[in-house]
Amino acid sequence: MNVYMDHGAAHPVDPQVLEAMSPYFSDSYGNPSSVHTQGFEAQRAMDEARERVASLIGAQASEIVFTSSATESNNLGIIGAATRYRKKGKGIVVSNIEHISVLNICKELSRQGFEIEYAPVDQEGILDLGRLTGLVDDETVLVSIIAANGEIGTIQPIKEAAEISHDHDALFHTDATSAAGQISLDAETIGFDLMTLSSNDIYGPKGAGALFLRKGLRVRPHMIGGGQEGGLRSGSENIPGIVGMGKAAELIQKDIDGEAKRLTKLRDRLIKGTLEAVPESYLNGHPTKRLPNNANIRFSYIEGEALILSLDQLGIRVSSGSACVAKTLEPSHVLMALGLRHEEAHGSLVFTLGKSNREDAVEYVIQRIPDVVRRLRAMSPLTPEELR
Amino acid sequence: MNVYMDHGAAHPVDPQVLEAMSPYFSDSYGNPSSVHTQGFEAQRAMDEARERVASLIGAQASEIVFTSSATESNNLGIIGAATRYRKKGKGIVVSNIEHISVLNICKELSRQGFEIEYAPVDQEGILDLGRLTGLVDDETVLVSIIAANGEIGTIQPIKEAAEISHDHDALFHTDATSAAGQISLDAETIGFDLMTLSSNDIYGPKGAGALFLRKGLRVRPHMIGGGQEGGLRSGSENIPGIVGMGKAAELIQKDIDGEAKRLTKLRDRLIKGTLEAVPESYLNGHPTKRLPNNANIRFSYIEGEALILSLDQLGIRVSSGSACVAKTLEPSHVLMALGLRHEEAHGSLVFTLGKSNREDAVEYVIQRIPDVVRRLRAMSPLTPEELR
Repeated sequence: MNVYMDHGAAHPVDPQVLEAMSPYFSDSYGNPSSVHTQGFEAQRAMDEARERVASLIGAQASEIVFTSSATESNNLGIIGAATRYRKKGKGIVVSNIEHISVLNICKELSRQGFEIEYAPVDQEGILDLGRLTGLVDDETVLVSIIAANGEIGTIQPIKEAAEISHDHDALFHTDATSAAGQISLDAETIGFDLMTLSSNDIYGPKGAGALFLRKGLRVRPHMIGGGQEGGLRSGSENIPGIVGMGKAAELIQKDIDGEAKRLTKLRDRLIKGTLEAVPESYLNGHPTKRLPNNANIRFSYIEGEALILSLDQLGIRVSSGSACVAKTLEPSHVLMALGLRHEEAHGSLVFTLGKSNREDAVEYVIQRIPDVVRRLRAMSPLTPEELR
Repeated sequence: MNVYMDHGAAHPVDPQVLEAMSPYFSDSYGNPSSVHTQGFEAQRAMDEARERVASLIGAQASEIVFTSSATESNNLGIIGAATRYRKKGKGIVVSNIEHISVLNICKELSRQGFEIEYAPVDQEGILDLGRLTGLVDDETVLVSIIAANGEIGTIQPIKEAAEISHDHDALFHTDATSAAGQISLDAETIGFDLMTLSSNDIYGPKGAGALFLRKGLRVRPHMIGGGQEGGLRSGSENIPGIVGMGKAAELIQKDIDGEAKRLTKLRDRLIKGTLEAVPESYLNGHPTKRLPNNANIRFSYIEGEALILSLDQLGIRVSSGSACVAKTLEPSHVLMALGLRHEEAHGSLVFTLGKSNREDAVEYVIQRIPDVVRRLRAMSPLTPEELR
């Protein structure tokens, strides 16, 4: 049986999305800047995609800037806003469980003279709003809090974080790469000023992303060139990618609650089944305030990497953390932020479910994991005798 | 009849390219950083694509960095190299007919304290090597000369420009967006240190590009994040886009000379036929040192925009300049650099041919243009009586 539970790393493209993209490769292949029929078709397709992406988050089409990825949106949104509004102050506040791209962007901004403060999360991975309040002040230009961390799945109180930011006239950005399409994120209700969106994470194609930029705000462009996207993001537009992201946004919006309910049930069965079947296994993150598709479980005495490779041989594809840092040997900064020790962080598995997963897949995983864990523990010098 | 002669703005994706990409959307959709079968497949596909792109320019796979577009490659290559090697000096030299992205990047670098010098071209659009020699000195950190301008098609003496740069230990970058795949560009023979490549311009998908970076060189990353592409370009890799670019590079390399010969013949017939059929029409650029697919012709007394819209109604898709600046009302900086007056620049048409164009298309254009020009001239107050 093949079970793909690594949607945090990559999603398949929805067949309907691929169908929507398809004409824009070899038939309607125009450049939207061209002043002829082919160009007009491309422009119309892009306009429609922009409406669809905006609709997913209750925004206006004019508030969406298309980029090549969530990483680029983070670069454009965070660097672009911080440098554009630098006169307001040099303070930037982020959580300590942001995606690696946000953390590395902050390091770069620190080199440019900004002062970065890191707001901690509690042991279950939820942002400490009291500590955040203490860190944001009138010198803060931007606050960025991840809407939900893709690795431990915890959903953050971003509405409250936005309010704390606005109390000091700081801009509020949220990286919604993992959250968008899984939970409702309404621009008006939550009040974010900037939001990072990923195409692939909503079953759209890789190579596309978007930045929500609230009306009236400007950012310094990150990609310099011909002035596409209202001067905010240059480079010939990736029309098939943009069309695909638009279609994906439309499709995922249709049944956001139904799919969340279905995945939550599968997720909870996976967590309960695994924790019951494997001694000394524990859930990382919050039991309920987590993304419907995320289960992050740690197994004492073994290495996540070995576990992943063993499960791969059984057709089960999972992850030990963010794929974006998978090739480094560092323990996950997210798990460390929860207060875990190095060895605990290293023995964790991330299951991220998706549309293709059914109950049978979950049962297959629950059935196979105990043996794999037992075998690996038997090889580990750390394992106590009674678990061998 | 539908005649697409605006390949400078956008290319259709080759059907074989689309076929090669196809599995990577919904079947092999893994993230190359993932440590399981799906991830390994993605990694292998990317490795193969890197080999193929490298092969097109006689480079090694390790010298190719994938990006999202030629514009991004220009940002990474030019800003990245200039800032990385800033200690060498603050001088940057570019031609005055670079793509708008290079010129705008230079403006940004100028704000950052770099000193930009613009090397002129002659009336036929060929770089003045004598003037270039005078501008490059030991304080020059980087020289960037476009391999061939997509708008007027002139092929530049980049081998000589690279030598002049190296005489002063300056790095040499070339934007080969329009040239790659049309003319041979060998990294060893020509000696460029950095080169910008576009996927769509070689019949690959939009949303992909590459930067050649000679072994041993480093650049400051432009996209900050998870450290993909050896730390030089972060963001989850656009595997279908990268695979498509690789396949496109492989395909175009197979018959680069044959297709160049075929297009040159069509181009020359288009130029000769049009100049003979329309009084007071002139070729912009060099008669022979030009891209096989490019014909840029100016028609006195009329506006290019009106001409394009009229031709569109006859099924003929052409351009009045770079699509990247088509929506501004500024005259083309490239045509101005040739010494043309504003009104001459505005009355120019750019034909960029491609694989789908045959003799019948060229004859159709030659046959239809005279009437369209006559009609527009009849409406223009500038037209002399004898041409009405």
